[in-house]
Amino acid sequence: MPDTSSHFDGARVLADLHALRNIGAYKSGVHKPTFSPAHMHSLQWLTERLPEAGLGAEIDGIGNVLGTSTRPGPKLLAGSHLESQNFAGWLDGPLGVVYALEAARVINSDNNTNGAVEVAAWCDEEGHFGSFLGSRSYVGAATEADIDAARDRNNDRSMRDALREVGLAGRARVNYAPGRHIGYLEAHIEQGQTLERGDLKIGVVTSIVGIWQYRITFTGEQNHAGTTRMDLRKDAGLALARFCVGIDDGFPKLCGPRTVWTTGLITLDPGAPSIIPGHAEMLFQIRDDDVGVIDRLEARLRGMAAEVTARGPCSVAVERIRTGTPALMDTAFQQAIEAASVTCAGGKSLRMPSAAGHDAQVLSTVMPAGMLFVPSIGGISHHWNENTADADIVTGAEVFVEACRRLLTR
Amino acid sequence: MPDTSSHFDGARVLADLHALRNIGAYKSGVHKPTFSPAHMHSLQWLTERLPEAGLGAEIDGIGNVLGTSTRPGPKLLAGSHLESQNFAGWLDGPLGVVYALEAARVINSDNNTNGAVEVAAWCDEEGHFGSFLGSRSYVGAATEADIDAARDRNNDRSMRDALREVGLAGRARVNYAPGRHIGYLEAHIEQGQTLERGDLKIGVVTSIVGIWQYRITFTGEQNHAGTTRMDLRKDAGLALARFCVGIDDGFPKLCGPRTVWTTGLITLDPGAPSIIPGHAEMLFQIRDDDVGVIDRLEARLRGMAAEVTARGPCSVAVERIRTGTPALMDTAFQQAIEAASVTCAGGKSLRMPSAAGHDAQVLSTVMPAGMLFVPSIGGISHHWNENTADADIVTGAEVFVEACRRLLTR
Repeated sequence: MPDTSSHFDGARVLADLHALRNIGAYKSGVHKPTFSPAHMHSLQWLTERLPEAGLGAEIDGIGNVLGTSTRPGPKLLAGSHLESQNFAGWLDGPLGVVYALEAARVINSDNNTNGAVEVAAWCDEEGHFGSFLGSRSYVGAATEADIDAARDRNNDRSMRDALREVGLAGRARVNYAPGRHIGYLEAHIEQGQTLERGDLKIGVVTSIVGIWQYRITFTGEQNHAGTTRMDLRKDAGLALARFCVGIDDGFPKLCGPRTVWTTGLITLDPGAPSIIPGHAEMLFQIRDDDVGVIDRLEARLRGMAAEVTARGPCSVAVERIRTGTPALMDTAFQQAIEAASVTCAGGKSLRMPSAAGHDAQVLSTVMPAGMLFVPSIGGISHHWNENTADADIVTGAEVFVEACRRLLTR
Repeated sequence: MPDTSSHFDGARVLADLHALRNIGAYKSGVHKPTFSPAHMHSLQWLTERLPEAGLGAEIDGIGNVLGTSTRPGPKLLAGSHLESQNFAGWLDGPLGVVYALEAARVINSDNNTNGAVEVAAWCDEEGHFGSFLGSRSYVGAATEADIDAARDRNNDRSMRDALREVGLAGRARVNYAPGRHIGYLEAHIEQGQTLERGDLKIGVVTSIVGIWQYRITFTGEQNHAGTTRMDLRKDAGLALARFCVGIDDGFPKLCGPRTVWTTGLITLDPGAPSIIPGHAEMLFQIRDDDVGVIDRLEARLRGMAAEVTARGPCSVAVERIRTGTPALMDTAFQQAIEAASVTCAGGKSLRMPSAAGHDAQVLSTVMPAGMLFVPSIGGISHHWNENTADADIVTGAEVFVEACRRLLTR
């Protein structure tokens, strides 16, 4: 074999990340909704890089990019995603893809390491169309009916139409081959401040929280904002505001140490300044890795809704629209990351749960999975100000490559 | 003169109202935003009816329909509007226009009555583009810069573009001729339950409340809904919900007997289920005919905002975006409506303020103005279920025509 070996190159990692940041740049971050031109351009960019790592490249029928190796020996799957939340950060997703690409470039050309790193970019981790549709498709957990039903939350375009418009309609969706991979490794920014505050460089993820989501709807009576006396009103918007405050007052007494809850979207109907809203809706989310805590909080939500409805003048309905499943990360993967951080990051690592959802939780249903975090400056995330120090990006990449090597040479 | 006299015809009034209801029908109501095809079709319908009342018809450069008479003698201006709120009722606006049309048909062909009723349909009373832009244009209170700045709140289309698209760009805007009219009379549904509950048929409007509007903005910090601990959050949406509840708790101690206040629109930014909103905004409105009450309430709003900002973690800004002017209705007009209701409605009338804004408040700044209300079933308004009994519609029309006759023959 000719010597085509490639050594770890931190500058190459940074250059790749900046190349991706320049596609769909928005302020200091990016705007790359799923199947937008900037997202498709980013997928294309990756398919052009994969051969540098000895990988065959394809984009499948749901927009997953898969780089596969013909090298003999064990295969480790690694990756993340390339689309972003709207007007959001440059590292959430691309960091994990570029780390995987770097690991593949280094390891797949290294005659001293057995096997290969295969690279994946999962489509729509950010959920513009649904919940982890790309990785769920890969593990066989997304049906054709799921795809039929998926719609872009930005503009209500169907996923089928979107796939047609970007030229992916009719392509096969690639499923994982049972037994092919020893597991899946993903890197991500922490999106919190634990590492930064502890002067740590590597988070070794122990579990990924589940996300439970609820649509809470309030029904009152739409009426004229001038002619309807205050004592005769059934203001659904006011009922919603009181409900939000009730949650904020009641949940701290019932939650666990790491529970978080968020009202991310409020809609008043019809939403005009001179009309008392007759309907109102909020999207509400709870995250925890303890299903018992969730059960308590959901019971409280339903109890509050029943109380408010009984008291009037508006009625409240709580509908669970997403059920979470906390995912445990593989112990051997945790050990490999920890050992790699001793070698490459002075052992400045911490075992911690992930409060954000990641494709690793989906992959963990069919193979061992692990995750590695790098610090986030100020913990800022899902915002264009999201960032990580260059030195921390490079350290993380080195630990990632080393962890891959350890996992393949066990 | 040939005998072309026309007698009051209640069936004709109902038929006209149903013809307008069929244009842009939505459920039991209509959907006719300003400059929509259904709105333009309704304006066209009116211009074709006006000659039946001996009136010349034109649509001016802001979409006002004006029916003018060449008859000698005093002129009374009467009308209302033909666009609707989105997905709203069939009578809010058209009732007043058809009453005016009927009065013109009856009076302008009656050789025993001096002078004429002239008919107007004011554009955009419902405020899709602004605040009473049609009637304000007529009284000379809408500048070219106001038109330049106006945008459709449904789709952000500029009023200039909308005027171009409906073929009105470049037409002159017609202003009132000082001294031409003895005054302006407008009929409307009550949009409340006072008449219905008192078994009354006619409301004699004494004043129209002023509307004060505020944009209240909350600034926190956008962040990830999973990874940001509850105690580190700056959730602008939660601050907004607490503010709404604070208003609801505090205003009743400070308001007047007829004050009403409404939060009609709430926007969380970015409005995604997994993102803590960094910004939030509410449109808030107060109505009263007592400026002293408004001053107290506005001071309370600003005080609350300062307290919340000082306490943190979010800051609040209160911006007044509309200043109300309560309008008094002319005494002689009130007497004429009352006398007409004795003749045609068994005297079942009540003097009352209007809690809704109407074009009559704008016309009252340049000529005597009066308003007449008919009952609303259940007080429902700005909703497609808005309705009035046929018999009440006909009684109201008869009182309206008789009031016009009395005003012209004083």
